[in-house]
Amino acid sequence: MTQATQSPTKVDSKASFTGLKCKECGTEYEATAIHVCELCFGPLEVSYDYSAIARRVTRATIEAGPKSIWRYRDFLPVATDNPIDVGTGMTPLLQANRLARRLGLKKLYIKNDAVNMPTLSFKDRVVSVALTRAKELGFTTVSCASTGNLANSTAAIAAHAGLDCCVFIPSDLEAGKVLGTLIYGPTVMSVQGNYDQVNRLCCEVANTYGWGFVNINLRPYYSEGSKTLGYEVVEQLGWELPDHIVAPLASGSLFTKIHKGFQEFIKVGLIEDKHVRFSGAQAEGCSPIAKAFQEGRDFITPVKPNTIAKSLAIGNPADAVYALEIARKTGGNIESVNDAEIIEAIKLLAETEGIFTETAGGTTIAVLKKLVEAGKIDPEETTVAYITGNGLKTQEAVQEYAGQPLTIEAKLDSFERALERSRTLERLDWQQVSV
Amino acid sequence: MTQATQSPTKVDSKASFTGLKCKECGTEYEATAIHVCELCFGPLEVSYDYSAIARRVTRATIEAGPKSIWRYRDFLPVATDNPIDVGTGMTPLLQANRLARRLGLKKLYIKNDAVNMPTLSFKDRVVSVALTRAKELGFTTVSCASTGNLANSTAAIAAHAGLDCCVFIPSDLEAGKVLGTLIYGPTVMSVQGNYDQVNRLCCEVANTYGWGFVNINLRPYYSEGSKTLGYEVVEQLGWELPDHIVAPLASGSLFTKIHKGFQEFIKVGLIEDKHVRFSGAQAEGCSPIAKAFQEGRDFITPVKPNTIAKSLAIGNPADAVYALEIARKTGGNIESVNDAEIIEAIKLLAETEGIFTETAGGTTIAVLKKLVEAGKIDPEETTVAYITGNGLKTQEAVQEYAGQPLTIEAKLDSFERALERSRTLERLDWQQVSV
Ligand SMILES: [Zn+2]
Ligand SMILES: [Zn+2]
Repeated sequence: MTQATQSPTKVDSKASFTGLKCKECGTEYEATAIHVCELCFGPLEVSYDYSAIARRVTRATIEAGPKSIWRYRDFLPVATDNPIDVGTGMTPLLQANRLARRLGLKKLYIKNDAVNMPTLSFKDRVVSVALTRAKELGFTTVSCASTGNLANSTAAIAAHAGLDCCVFIPSDLEAGKVLGTLIYGPTVMSVQGNYDQVNRLCCEVANTYGWGFVNINLRPYYSEGSKTLGYEVVEQLGWELPDHIVAPLASGSLFTKIHKGFQEFIKVGLIEDKHVRFSGAQAEGCSPIAKAFQEGRDFITPVKPNTIAKSLAIGNPADAVYALEIARKTGGNIESVNDAEIIEAIKLLAETEGIFTETAGGTTIAVLKKLVEAGKIDPEETTVAYITGNGLKTQEAVQEYAGQPLTIEAKLDSFERALERSRTLERLDWQQVSV
Repeated sequence: MTQATQSPTKVDSKASFTGLKCKECGTEYEATAIHVCELCFGPLEVSYDYSAIARRVTRATIEAGPKSIWRYRDFLPVATDNPIDVGTGMTPLLQANRLARRLGLKKLYIKNDAVNMPTLSFKDRVVSVALTRAKELGFTTVSCASTGNLANSTAAIAAHAGLDCCVFIPSDLEAGKVLGTLIYGPTVMSVQGNYDQVNRLCCEVANTYGWGFVNINLRPYYSEGSKTLGYEVVEQLGWELPDHIVAPLASGSLFTKIHKGFQEFIKVGLIEDKHVRFSGAQAEGCSPIAKAFQEGRDFITPVKPNTIAKSLAIGNPADAVYALEIARKTGGNIESVNDAEIIEAIKLLAETEGIFTETAGGTTIAVLKKLVEAGKIDPEETTVAYITGNGLKTQEAVQEYAGQPLTIEAKLDSFERALERSRTLERLDWQQVSV
């Protein structure tokens, strides 16, 4: 739109990205460690030379690539031939027949990042990309501000890559989540202060020490990693788009990047165009985007989060406006569910499909259920639900709702009495349900 | 050797397994739910028609298969074309350059089943095979006796497959491990009694109720699943055998089945023959096989386990004699390490490679280190270490050794003081080390 402060430069002959561009005013920048437009404060996004990609990439070249997100290297903002590859990505796309039957759908798939490498959440995708780019840009210390999954992922992948790492966490974090970061040996700063205060401190540290913060000054590169959740689903469906996707909304970035991934595959001619509906999931205790959607607004009102789905608890989501636009434009929906529904959905997914997901995944499945019941997902639609993290990370949320073992002696008659008791209880349960 | 009580029958035209055979006396049996030889009480093992496999299987047919253990279906004891496939297997084989440098090796790989599907341990392999076979044999209820990983895996995969499931656990199990089973909705029996008493009860239940116990009456099928840890390493090394493998020893079954997997690939002509050394890892607190190896015995003396590596704590390992034979015959070693070394090794692997493993994996890495230091692994050997489970499952073992975060206020000067303090501590650490 307006004049560029810096002209875009081609980073490397092998790289297919050309620079950064403001999502709001279109100003172009070099591909350095910046994330905000100097003119309008809009977010910066990576630009690519799609005709170069189209000339270079085919289904066959992708299929011959590594079994990780790096098979899509041409669509990612790195120049190197040696990205940090710890096997991140290419997680299973599971046909969820038993859950589908319970919900009344015909073709339901679960994209299961609960088993992503190395730290069991989709954050491994974005961090792999951010730290590969950080190395290219010359950073030797990387950092992040996080409440859990992101800290695990940054510490683990930095360890593998031999980068110094300093992680900022809130001072009231659960011991289990702290351990899952400390074990990799980073410096861990436990900050007394709220989300905004921690973020401000991190910006100051980034400027003063010249560190690469994956979700601050490296954010444009970092967020591109989520596109691989779009690419993989297309490839795993046999190079076809689904009809409907359901994904959780925290900042809204994941949601918009899955959309971008689909669009890019169409643009370079890898797949046929097709209308895909995008539906988003929030927890009632932090649902600014769902509220805006339901009230027909194109802006959100920030909230103070209060939900068990802590990894989704962003009260002032940066990409809300883009997520709202995509949901509306594609004929999708954005719904929220309460904590009880989230716990029920975690159990439902575990009991029908053998997948134990964290509270964010419970939110997605609960919203999926709600949308089907409201007639907002057609049973005939090929639907993909995105599970973004592992249940072992939020055990405290479900501990008291998972039931108890039956205690017996090591004798057949003791076993038989317990079995009879449990079957009677089950029958009573069913009678209550059918009353 | 002697007469067969039943003649082997071809199960199915598509199946390449022909029946069961006693590992001790060679008596052949039909492929039903039995695991012990009626004549000599030896363990039964699955037999295959290797010339049929050789005619049917090439590298290309395997590479075109699913991205799971089922790409090796022709080598597994199932007849169906629709096995229970939850994405189990094809876990990353990671080139561990930073750990290799620390240990003084040149080519070290980590086979990482800490991210196996669906429950983050190698048990998902054996359970996927056992439950697929259980369905073929007509079982509708499946079961297991387990202290952790196996219970998680059986409950999860049974849930996905829609099989009824009852799991037997010891009454003193940690709450976290119980939750990782309960969440999938099986019946969980918490048994007051020691390992032998629980096992005896399970045998009685199997006989009385006709249930399929994955590690009792389905054991011959179950244990074959571990062969895929051999196949995958070969395929991931570009269809070549490594020079040396290091794997943990509990019953000894995993170790012998990796060996069997390598041998089968040679037998059907998929790869060139090559000498591979097999080294085994035990925890000092339960090291009957390591003791027998070091004392030159070909039999073990049972022990009462006392170690943090609970998933390896089998005091009277069933396949010890076969494991001893393989280690000796291949020029490998069997070593044990103490609990402190196990914890140090968990941290070492996390800090160098970004992989958080449970105590069994710590045992393997600690033994790897010990063998290198003793000159028992040549730096030039291509070495593969098997990591069999995820660290999130045994958090209590490392909790107090992982260090503490630095608590700061959300202000730059508070951060700077903390950073200076941590760097001073690090320097002191190094000075102490170098004194
Ligand atoms: Zn702008
Ligand atoms: Zn026999």
